Amino acid sequence: VRIAVDAMGGDHAPDEIVRGALLYREVVGTADLVLVGDEAKLKALLGGKGTSFEIVHAAGVIGMDEHPAAALRRRDDTSIGVATRLVKDGRADAVVSAGNTGATMAAALLILGRVRGIDRPALCGMLPVTSERQATCLLDAGATMDADARNLLQFAKMATAFMEKVHGVSRPSVGLINVGEEPEKGDKLRLDAHALLRAAPDLNFYGNIEGRDVLRGVTDIALTDGFNGNVLAKGLEGAFDVLQHGIRGDIFGGPLGKIAGAIALPGIRRFRGRFDYDPYVSAPLLGINGVSVVTHGRAKANMMRWAIAVGERAVANRLVEAIGTIAAPAE
Amino acid sequence: VRIAVDAMGGDHAPDEIVRGALLYREVVGTADLVLVGDEAKLKALLGGKGTSFEIVHAAGVIGMDEHPAAALRRRDDTSIGVATRLVKDGRADAVVSAGNTGATMAAALLILGRVRGIDRPALCGMLPVTSERQATCLLDAGATMDADARNLLQFAKMATAFMEKVHGVSRPSVGLINVGEEPEKGDKLRLDAHALLRAAPDLNFYGNIEGRDVLRGVTDIALTDGFNGNVLAKGLEGAFDVLQHGIRGDIFGGPLGKIAGAIALPGIRRFRGRFDYDPYVSAPLLGINGVSVVTHGRAKANMMRWAIAVGERAVANRLVEAIGTIAAPAE
Repeated sequence: VRIAVDAMGGDHAPDEIVRGALLYREVVGTADLVLVGDEAKLKALLGGKGTSFEIVHAAGVIGMDEHPAAALRRRDDTSIGVATRLVKDGRADAVVSAGNTGATMAAALLILGRVRGIDRPALCGMLPVTSERQATCLLDAGATMDADARNLLQFAKMATAFMEKVHGVSRPSVGLINVGEEPEKGDKLRLDAHALLRAAPDLNFYGNIEGRDVLRGVTDIALTDGFNGNVLAKGLEGAFDVLQHGIRGDIFGGPLGKIAGAIALPGIRRFRGRFDYDPYVSAPLLGINGVSVVTHGRAKANMMRWAIAVGERAVANRLVEAIGTIAAPAE
Repeated sequence: VRIAVDAMGGDHAPDEIVRGALLYREVVGTADLVLVGDEAKLKALLGGKGTSFEIVHAAGVIGMDEHPAAALRRRDDTSIGVATRLVKDGRADAVVSAGNTGATMAAALLILGRVRGIDRPALCGMLPVTSERQATCLLDAGATMDADARNLLQFAKMATAFMEKVHGVSRPSVGLINVGEEPEKGDKLRLDAHALLRAAPDLNFYGNIEGRDVLRGVTDIALTDGFNGNVLAKGLEGAFDVLQHGIRGDIFGGPLGKIAGAIALPGIRRFRGRFDYDPYVSAPLLGINGVSVVTHGRAKANMMRWAIAVGERAVANRLVEAIGTIAAPAE
């Protein structure tokens, strides 16, 4: 397995991306890595440590203020564009990026295209949960706007394949995010989707779940449309930020707080461990004809290491082929 | 001003509801209160302390497994039905309930009806925020499914009246919850709503905000459809629960944690104070032809006290009339 890493994407690129690649090689190391980015910078960062990495030069980065698809069409030197084309050309099996999700998605759609039989792609936002599950796949986290019930059914099937193939969850349960548990609750999209999901023989459909059930980890998959999923994922992330900021500043901030923090250190570590989602946050774009893994823009080395591992597992366990079988079961 | 309090609604009814009424009379006390519920129980709870409260008997409660509208049509003895009819009959100016939101909404719609010119009602979920604002009104938190762009425009106007009249915020800012800040982002509903909001001369339209901006308090009003608002409000509440549970259990749980907790007590109080939303969580249903205040099912005495005060301010500042003027400005 050979993985193209977008070394220029993300808040901490290229330093932490390169450190993540080195960490991956040190800890796991089964896949070959291709670093895509500014060759001089990458060589300087690697020193002598990365002689086994191939480097493919790409000087450009897509800015946050650029329209991703337009930028990709206009310029052929962006790191995400070059890295994704390596997959298209068979020179890599997967691309992994912590860069602008919109740009990664645009590159995947423009260069790799959709799996035949899948109408719209979906993005899995992996969330840490408090149940015995590792994490819940919240999808669609924003790949597709204006999804219909048929799209939601396809999303549920793709997420099922993803959780089985990449996370080793057998018969993952699917919860439809709704305003209440009763089947007759919700807007028209939810009513239609509920009926389709209930009738699908190959899904482990749990029924409706509510907003609070997502972090509780009531199901392996929390299914919704891309608008709602994006707002909810960002809202939950904002809640974590606000509360962690409060804990740090209000509770453990002053001189007394610092003493309390030293005493409570084992507990603080336990708390952090519960919400450590480095291993889970990365996910491939589902419905793409190739493996394109999106990770968090804030990714540092450890998260990048896991993102590369997710790409490797998706390739090794033939995720794209599995989704192709779901999409066109008769063929 | 005369307020009907549904004494039987909520997780802690009737004890905490009655305690809330007593607290209101003690601390604020400008409105007269009518307690609606099981007369014998209420008299026993009040002892001699509530002789200035009128009690109106209503033995029934709408169960969580009942269909609210059907229950209201079938039975005329439910506390929320009786309390809402007091407003309809002019025997009270507002009804306040911590009971099933669906039942309060159904009673308001069936008994009081909508304001002329308002097509659909909206529910304001008041959230504590970290900016200098007191709180943000997240609406619609679930009153209306399948809203269109025109409904969202009406919601924005009603919330503007609410924040001005009840919370004293002058020219409250309105943020449209979306998947990105750029005007061209979002699904069809958001694109249409953005255009209508931008063109509305009587609104202080900020533009798009994202899920994480809601708790940051970027705007006074965070506008969305009832499906998305309900899922987001419950999701954020779930995040608070999960994190508070983690803080209590992981950090301050064991013997060392207890010592740390004692040392950090002033900080813990500061932290709690920041997220103390008792004064803000209650809000009237907007678009109803009368004041019907919904508060949290978990409300205890202090939150009930504030809920009654919100009802009083809505009546005293003529919120319903203000919404009527917005809805039919030509009349």
